[in-house]
Amino acid sequence: MSKEFSGYRGEVLEAIRKAEVEIGNLIQISRDGESYEGILIPRSEYGDQKHIVIKLKNGYNIGVRITKNTKIRKIGKGAKPAFAPPPRPKQRENLPKVTILSTGGTIASRVDYRTGGVRPALTASDLYSVVPELAEVAVIDAQILFSLFSENITPKHWAEVAKAVAEQISKGVEGVVIAHGTDTLGYTAAALSFALQNLPVPVILVGSQRSADRPSSDAATNLIGAVTAAAYAPFAEVAVAMHETPSDTAIAIHRGTKVRKCHTSRRDAFKSVNTTSIARVQDQKLIMLTDDYRKRNSASKLVLKPKFDEKVALIKFYPGIKPQLIDWYVEQGFKGLVIEGTGLGHVGRDCFEPIRKAVEHDVLVAVTSQCIWGRVNMNVYDSGRDLLNLGAIPLEDILPETALVKLMWVQGQTHNLEEAKRLLIANIAGEFSPRTLAEGTELI
Amino acid sequence: MSKEFSGYRGEVLEAIRKAEVEIGNLIQISRDGESYEGILIPRSEYGDQKHIVIKLKNGYNIGVRITKNTKIRKIGKGAKPAFAPPPRPKQRENLPKVTILSTGGTIASRVDYRTGGVRPALTASDLYSVVPELAEVAVIDAQILFSLFSENITPKHWAEVAKAVAEQISKGVEGVVIAHGTDTLGYTAAALSFALQNLPVPVILVGSQRSADRPSSDAATNLIGAVTAAAYAPFAEVAVAMHETPSDTAIAIHRGTKVRKCHTSRRDAFKSVNTTSIARVQDQKLIMLTDDYRKRNSASKLVLKPKFDEKVALIKFYPGIKPQLIDWYVEQGFKGLVIEGTGLGHVGRDCFEPIRKAVEHDVLVAVTSQCIWGRVNMNVYDSGRDLLNLGAIPLEDILPETALVKLMWVQGQTHNLEEAKRLLIANIAGEFSPRTLAEGTELI
Repeated sequence: MSKEFSGYRGEVLEAIRKAEVEIGNLIQISRDGESYEGILIPRSEYGDQKHIVIKLKNGYNIGVRITKNTKIRKIGKGAKPAFAPPPRPKQRENLPKVTILSTGGTIASRVDYRTGGVRPALTASDLYSVVPELAEVAVIDAQILFSLFSENITPKHWAEVAKAVAEQISKGVEGVVIAHGTDTLGYTAAALSFALQNLPVPVILVGSQRSADRPSSDAATNLIGAVTAAAYAPFAEVAVAMHETPSDTAIAIHRGTKVRKCHTSRRDAFKSVNTTSIARVQDQKLIMLTDDYRKRNSASKLVLKPKFDEKVALIKFYPGIKPQLIDWYVEQGFKGLVIEGTGLGHVGRDCFEPIRKAVEHDVLVAVTSQCIWGRVNMNVYDSGRDLLNLGAIPLEDILPETALVKLMWVQGQTHNLEEAKRLLIANIAGEFSPRTLAEGTELI
Repeated sequence: MSKEFSGYRGEVLEAIRKAEVEIGNLIQISRDGESYEGILIPRSEYGDQKHIVIKLKNGYNIGVRITKNTKIRKIGKGAKPAFAPPPRPKQRENLPKVTILSTGGTIASRVDYRTGGVRPALTASDLYSVVPELAEVAVIDAQILFSLFSENITPKHWAEVAKAVAEQISKGVEGVVIAHGTDTLGYTAAALSFALQNLPVPVILVGSQRSADRPSSDAATNLIGAVTAAAYAPFAEVAVAMHETPSDTAIAIHRGTKVRKCHTSRRDAFKSVNTTSIARVQDQKLIMLTDDYRKRNSASKLVLKPKFDEKVALIKFYPGIKPQLIDWYVEQGFKGLVIEGTGLGHVGRDCFEPIRKAVEHDVLVAVTSQCIWGRVNMNVYDSGRDLLNLGAIPLEDILPETALVKLMWVQGQTHNLEEAKRLLIANIAGEFSPRTLAEGTELI
């Protein structure tokens, strides 16, 4: 019997025992005039001592804090849920083959209640075993590449991930999923978009904003969405699969060069910027939202270009910025600078002379906007025109983060300045959206 | 007669003459199967030679490009619009007094068709004369402080603007409007929010995304919204008045510390982040959207604190960032660093040692998130906890740009490190929103 309560200890366990309810019972918890009904489910062994977790009718798990005023009563037997770890489900062999490569992050993490922090701990196999639905979607192979929080992922790791993806693709998988921390997931998605060219199959990055052992974790739904896209999507691009809304209704599939983490904690933190997401996974089906994509084609021969040059910096311009910062990068031998300018792509005049000198030293200076949304247009104002005359290169509606990654990649491909410029402004992985007439158009 | 066509020249003028239409006529312009109906209005003397401007029934002005296939015909007389410059409207003397201080920017600009660029040129008085509706709203005094594109506004200008506002307030005006370029308008709004304490009246910054001489300019509506707020708002805070939507339906009033330019070109580029806008001006009426504001009170005595220390830098973290950048700032004698970390407030481990050294040198290191939306929480992951242990200071849900401005201001107020820390985490001008349960709450 005590086994049934594993995860509950102390006062909370006492409250459960006193109420004479069991795991799997439909219970009602009342406190301060509010009440919650759901099936009592077990907690992870790292669970705190203050909450009882119930599965609501809508499938959502919540943790209800137990105080002295809380009343618990059994209102039905309920269906006994299956507890983790479930038996490894029988694999249907006629499904597409998908490899999950884990780099770490919350999706591969659990809360360490000793330190109170979250640690990357689950293996890719563990991920699989806690999401038994995956067996219905694809034949999964799972590997750990790293166990890193994504703020510690560097351009060197991008190259390693790209190579690992290429290896999987050479083995004939129908798609690759990369589990990754959300913090720099957008940067890695951009990096792989440039490093993996002429892809035959989809490469889907996935993360989660809440670790798998927490109620309301988005890990399982995101992972199912990612594997569904990897196995069945008609596109062969690098993309990101994350919650489309705060609830579990759908997973958005974002193009790897156009996506950004736009919220610290929400489950729908990732947004496609200056474009729509390319697809949506809903009810385990993938719906394309655009016709403009590179088609899946097993005959395509992947071209791997995993080299990134770290002598490239991102400078966010702001009032009072020290222009000598630009000189410092030039002195340090940097070859490229991405400037997050203001508005349509501007910087203060104080920065003009250092930029002129940088260009003179064959440093590629690219301009993006800190507005995040919209397109730079350096022909409208004198500041923009002056910057163009100094040799700065406007990068249309690219994300500043993608611009940084692209410039690192460009400098990894060639030592020829003109070729580097050509690559920088070429639309290689959908990083530039076509100009539309919809926005800001006033002349007919 | 030729006077009536002022602004139209060359082929366009010829087309107008050939069609035998006059300014003020209701005309139909047809081209390639599409047609537009509206009143023919004059162009500014800087108008190009390719478009005819008509005022549509909905009040919106559009420029229709005239080609060889274009047909123009008169379909009615229409009401003759008043032409700029209109006679200076008779001022109603019983209205509130508002001063407009112009610092430059698009709202005070016009297109210079010699160079193709836009130049700050209109005086504050010009602004007034091209928006005659202002005479119905307030008694306007107008002054030019600078004629700068806002990318050239520095912390020194913030101090000058703050002093000029204080001077106007000492003269007893009911509100102050500051015309400003949109590029760094958010930074200046934050700066004034800290520099102008205990305000008796509202201080409203306003800009425009399209210059006043262009069809569909937002200059007039934004200015009317700003003057309305300055004259009548029940709050006494620094705020920003800009289009709420892409159309002319309403002007949003954003708190000065919580607003950011989030699009390069849209008229509704400015967004309140992690909070709602505080008010809306619609049909020339101001509607409050929150109860949480500092009340207008003519008895309040303004406390002017205009000093900003520029030895403060904003560092946006990214994969591959050179940690020596932090050392460089410390060597340059910087006293404060605002880090735009990833996610909940993280940086890679490579940056830990330089941050430790910076803190050891009494540099204030504050952490915000490049997500823009959401709140930093450095207790969730090891990276955040390690940063906290190094002495980094988490800044809740503040905008990174506001954090930079605030840290410059804090360092301008005190040389005492503990007092600086106290100021940094105190909620001085609504820069921190209260924690809410709505977002990311899973424990009830």
